[in-house]
Amino acid sequence: MPDSLLPRVSETSSSTPVTAPVSLDDYEALARARIPLPAWEFLNAGSGDEVTLRSNRESFARIRLMPRVMVDVSSIDTSITLFGQKLPHPILLAPTSSQMLANPEAEVATARGAGAAGAILVASTFSNRSIEEIAKTATQPLWFQLYVEDERAKTKDLIQRAESAGCRALCITVDLPWKCARNREDRVAEQTPMLPYPNLGMTSRPGGSARNVGRSRRFSWGDLAWIQSFAKTPILLKGVLNPDDADLAAKAGVAGIIVSNHGGRALDTAPATIDALPAVVDRVAGRIPVLVDSGIRRGTDVLKAMGHGATAVLIGRPYLYGLTVAGSEGVRHVIEILHTEFEAAMALTARTSVPAIDRSIFY
Amino acid sequence: MPDSLLPRVSETSSSTPVTAPVSLDDYEALARARIPLPAWEFLNAGSGDEVTLRSNRESFARIRLMPRVMVDVSSIDTSITLFGQKLPHPILLAPTSSQMLANPEAEVATARGAGAAGAILVASTFSNRSIEEIAKTATQPLWFQLYVEDERAKTKDLIQRAESAGCRALCITVDLPWKCARNREDRVAEQTPMLPYPNLGMTSRPGGSARNVGRSRRFSWGDLAWIQSFAKTPILLKGVLNPDDADLAAKAGVAGIIVSNHGGRALDTAPATIDALPAVVDRVAGRIPVLVDSGIRRGTDVLKAMGHGATAVLIGRPYLYGLTVAGSEGVRHVIEILHTEFEAAMALTARTSVPAIDRSIFY
Amino acid sequence: MPDSLLPRVSETSSSTPVTAPVSLDDYEALARARIPLPAWEFLNAGSGDEVTLRSNRESFARIRLMPRVMVDVSSIDTSITLFGQKLPHPILLAPTSSQMLANPEAEVATARGAGAAGAILVASTFSNRSIEEIAKTATQPLWFQLYVEDERAKTKDLIQRAESAGCRALCITVDLPWKCARNREDRVAEQTPMLPYPNLGMTSRPGGSARNVGRSRRFSWGDLAWIQSFAKTPILLKGVLNPDDADLAAKAGVAGIIVSNHGGRALDTAPATIDALPAVVDRVAGRIPVLVDSGIRRGTDVLKAMGHGATAVLIGRPYLYGLTVAGSEGVRHVIEILHTEFEAAMALTARTSVPAIDRSIFY
Amino acid sequence: MPDSLLPRVSETSSSTPVTAPVSLDDYEALARARIPLPAWEFLNAGSGDEVTLRSNRESFARIRLMPRVMVDVSSIDTSITLFGQKLPHPILLAPTSSQMLANPEAEVATARGAGAAGAILVASTFSNRSIEEIAKTATQPLWFQLYVEDERAKTKDLIQRAESAGCRALCITVDLPWKCARNREDRVAEQTPMLPYPNLGMTSRPGGSARNVGRSRRFSWGDLAWIQSFAKTPILLKGVLNPDDADLAAKAGVAGIIVSNHGGRALDTAPATIDALPAVVDRVAGRIPVLVDSGIRRGTDVLKAMGHGATAVLIGRPYLYGLTVAGSEGVRHVIEILHTEFEAAMALTARTSVPAIDRSIFY
Repeated sequence: MPDSLLPRVSETSSSTPVTAPVSLDDYEALARARIPLPAWEFLNAGSGDEVTLRSNRESFARIRLMPRVMVDVSSIDTSITLFGQKLPHPILLAPTSSQMLANPEAEVATARGAGAAGAILVASTFSNRSIEEIAKTATQPLWFQLYVEDERAKTKDLIQRAESAGCRALCITVDLPWKCARNREDRVAEQTPMLPYPNLGMTSRPGGSARNVGRSRRFSWGDLAWIQSFAKTPILLKGVLNPDDADLAAKAGVAGIIVSNHGGRALDTAPATIDALPAVVDRVAGRIPVLVDSGIRRGTDVLKAMGHGATAVLIGRPYLYGLTVAGSEGVRHVIEILHTEFEAAMALTARTSVPAIDRSIFY
Repeated sequence: MPDSLLPRVSETSSSTPVTAPVSLDDYEALARARIPLPAWEFLNAGSGDEVTLRSNRESFARIRLMPRVMVDVSSIDTSITLFGQKLPHPILLAPTSSQMLANPEAEVATARGAGAAGAILVASTFSNRSIEEIAKTATQPLWFQLYVEDERAKTKDLIQRAESAGCRALCITVDLPWKCARNREDRVAEQTPMLPYPNLGMTSRPGGSARNVGRSRRFSWGDLAWIQSFAKTPILLKGVLNPDDADLAAKAGVAGIIVSNHGGRALDTAPATIDALPAVVDRVAGRIPVLVDSGIRRGTDVLKAMGHGATAVLIGRPYLYGLTVAGSEGVRHVIEILHTEFEAAMALTARTSVPAIDRSIFY
Repeated sequence: MPDSLLPRVSETSSSTPVTAPVSLDDYEALARARIPLPAWEFLNAGSGDEVTLRSNRESFARIRLMPRVMVDVSSIDTSITLFGQKLPHPILLAPTSSQMLANPEAEVATARGAGAAGAILVASTFSNRSIEEIAKTATQPLWFQLYVEDERAKTKDLIQRAESAGCRALCITVDLPWKCARNREDRVAEQTPMLPYPNLGMTSRPGGSARNVGRSRRFSWGDLAWIQSFAKTPILLKGVLNPDDADLAAKAGVAGIIVSNHGGRALDTAPATIDALPAVVDRVAGRIPVLVDSGIRRGTDVLKAMGHGATAVLIGRPYLYGLTVAGSEGVRHVIEILHTEFEAAMALTARTSVPAIDRSIFY
Repeated sequence: MPDSLLPRVSETSSSTPVTAPVSLDDYEALARARIPLPAWEFLNAGSGDEVTLRSNRESFARIRLMPRVMVDVSSIDTSITLFGQKLPHPILLAPTSSQMLANPEAEVATARGAGAAGAILVASTFSNRSIEEIAKTATQPLWFQLYVEDERAKTKDLIQRAESAGCRALCITVDLPWKCARNREDRVAEQTPMLPYPNLGMTSRPGGSARNVGRSRRFSWGDLAWIQSFAKTPILLKGVLNPDDADLAAKAGVAGIIVSNHGGRALDTAPATIDALPAVVDRVAGRIPVLVDSGIRRGTDVLKAMGHGATAVLIGRPYLYGLTVAGSEGVRHVIEILHTEFEAAMALTARTSVPAIDRSIFY
């Protein structure tokens, strides 16, 4: 079925230059203009030919929503409950490394912005500020992202530090046991600045050597059981796309899973997360919450994720763009834009509360 | 199925510069060159990523028509009957706000052009000329578009003014109870000029503050019943895409519905209207007329809409382009071009009258 | 299913400038550089948004061929038999008007080139040289294309002139009873030169006034019967896409039909001819030959048409490009390139004669 | 289903200039900058409109992989066994002609690079260095590619020379019995340099006259039987896409087949090899190994080929790019990049050995 037989309408109209950002893409454009190329390539790159990176957004765009009209939508409640805690909206900040590339205040500014916007921040193992510093700033619940290391003592120590700092959940990243080609990142590997990684007690260039540190190729279900034996906070597995893995995760007693392709940075040509989500949700069948990230840029994307059964969503690059452009205020604004758009998308499909969002929103 | 494996033919041929417009797209190109950017962005923008805006046209373009030959087509009758009135063709002018951006005479020039081309004009609540002034100029039937307000008295007053002015039908817009992101418009919100909105007794910048005025988030079927209790003219609901809503509308006794996605300006990633139309027509099953707008730029588009069961179609942006380029004469010419193209499309599919247009025109 | 996720290989490689043409597209590029824009727009334009024009080529490109190997292909016989006459290959020259725009010798040069390449030429009613002059030059069978006029005497006279001149078949064009929008042509209507149309005894600008001359809107099956009552040569109907029309044509006793969308110049969004062909062939079921034109640019396109049951194919614009670039020699070369490519395509699918080409060539 | 409704992410980000190559596409970009245009066009061109050339890559890109997580992937074994010989990975070098265009050392440098990377090289009949010279350099098994000639004595002589030189298998190219249009190559036919073809005892320009030499149009199964009667090494047929041909090949007792469309240089609009592979594998049903080439540029492509049942893959243009940029070291690096990417793709789909790669890797 041929498409795009006509010139796109937007091609015939000149676009207004972005000054005050009004969308997540505006933040991307402004961030791009501000950030040195090597840092940009590190933050922005996908793996391989970036097929999955592009698919993440294209798959969201292809899904059609069915509006409903003539319903009283004067009150829209975007709140959700996650692990027993009420949150004003289902938007979380995904773990991202090396935020000093975006802003000297790094994760501390992010935590402040997340707090102002009522969003949970998942702090990365590869933060440039220590988990303790981040925790001190956070006013919303803080979660901790973990790469499991081969040395069990290190892993245990890191988990216990995070828990002591007050982190309320642990996200174990499981989709990158092996380094894969990120060519845009690879080309600048020696040009990014040396940065501190206090959680790991090391200094390194992002992307280059840092990517070979602290990631076990051996991590499997038995190791998870070991972590479960001492961890005090709920554990989520981040990077699940395969329904069989989701099923094993639920059986293994994890608290939740995050459907993710690492923002198109892990296995290239893996499915877009919104395409993979429905089968995962069906297999999990309500046993545990299923969250999703990768490619969410619009309130309609959040709605679509929830319609396919996600409990919440996470954004990554967009808040880094906000952080780059305007520090904590940029982070807050990015979340706010997305929240506002989500609210409008609920209103225009006539869902006045999150539990009312189901697959009947789709065309 | 891969498409566009070959360079497009048109890419290899230089295009002639448009001087005298011969198509609706020509009018767009000329209007773009004439109108200041902020006004253009307001008139032209879609919501979100403009996915629906583009889909409106692409979906029309994808539908294939099946020609018929060797039939006497020396006489083609494009007329229709709507609410008991005979019209020379099925092309109406959709309500659009703030026409002073296109032309200082605004809706008065539009009414004159509509009259010259035998087209019904649906005047917007957000007109820059009062409904009374517009009505004085109109020589064809005038309809009135309404955003229902929270204050019932205001709504009732507006309806009664419109009826007194001679409007013969009332189109209630139902697809925008909530403001949604139109980023191109948002970026210029403070740059558009202050304009009068005499129907509302106010002055405002288009798009900015005006978009938060006069729209009830509570409007639902009960409120409709209240309007029906005193309105003397037929009521149409504009902005229906969901067959369930169409069914409720028919049951509620409205006179007709308009399948519309607000020209891609309401919920982004809602379906193209020509994609949504067939299921709506099937559900309505002839109880009330179904009209359609959004994306109609060619006579073949009109034919396709009629083939899928529409009683009539409405155009929006195209007549604003005509209004911008040549005032009332431009409006007339735009309608005339589309009418002539529709006539030719009927001839080449061998339909000599509108009732003969059914789904057998499709390939 | 997303396509084109990768940059096209050809985008990353610079292309060699065309000097000596080696493909039909090369001839297009060279012709474009030589011919004044108004003439180019007339020759090259499609109708409407040129959706059908582009589809003609894209649909050919999308069809996959299944090679066969390890077959003796040392001898490939491309000949066909049509109306009892043996032809060296199945490539005919479709009727095209106003060839003086391409070359001062016009149809006379075309006839010479066709003769040199063993191709039948279908001379247009709207030739710039008289049918008698063309016939004098032709060394291969000449056919005559006819637009039926309202005045029966004129039509009868034209048919009898063509037959007297030696034309061996009559192609009646049936897909343009009504002028449709060809915007690129419309924009230059007053800029093309005045040309003689000796078959009609008039002088006119191509495309402008000429398009309203000599085309009956009333022509139907009864009129065909009248022509059949006196015509001495086989009659083909050109411009059939609808299987029902093909069936009626076979029942009416015509000698053949040409599946055509007028090179994308009649009803826009009509199907590509290669998409419409199979159903027409199936309906005709061998009663009469089915020819096809519109979009053929490669030997593989000829093979695909034959595989779907065409008896022969016609090319239009490509030989005009040859005529523009190198007169009769260009016409000859264009046919020769296509013939050579067709021969290779037969060899690589291991069909050593035309009757062996069937639907099993497709993947 | 419309795609690409959004601008591609990568379009909004500037790309880093390639200096040190980190991907096969990087080598292409660097090679393009280094190699004169005529030579480039010869090496790079596809046939016809290059539809198959582009499809080869697009079809790989469209296939989605399903990751698996939480499996111990600390040890990944990429080795395979082919014709009883253990190889470190399944990547072979396809036969390509005229390597002197890429590097003065030509096939000798290629053999050295192949050896360093543990890859089998299939030397072309149209090598610029003799098979004896190449064999002297090779440290990995060498295979010989053959175009069968009409003169049986020449063919027999060539096979016996290759066997005497130590070639361990014979690949007979079967998909080009007839020259087909390669327009980019055709345009530069007289501009490429004269090169030696010592296996054939001649000097010629690549692409031009050379393409008409030494290729029998008569070669069929009987001739194969004749070759089998004296050849001492396993015979593979290269250029099979049709399952029926694959079946005949297996019945004829060949040692293996190579699913290939000649890198998009034979019949244009033939299917992409990764699309054709599954049906061929199914028909062969394990009787003989099935190899595949054409379009492999990423480790994920290798994985997908293996998942659809290929025993090994071959690359062509990419190693020529390596040869152009850095001689034998470039060849080695290209293979190494692909091997490393393949290893990572196995890890991220949790396949620790090649036999574990089956169709369950697909989404």
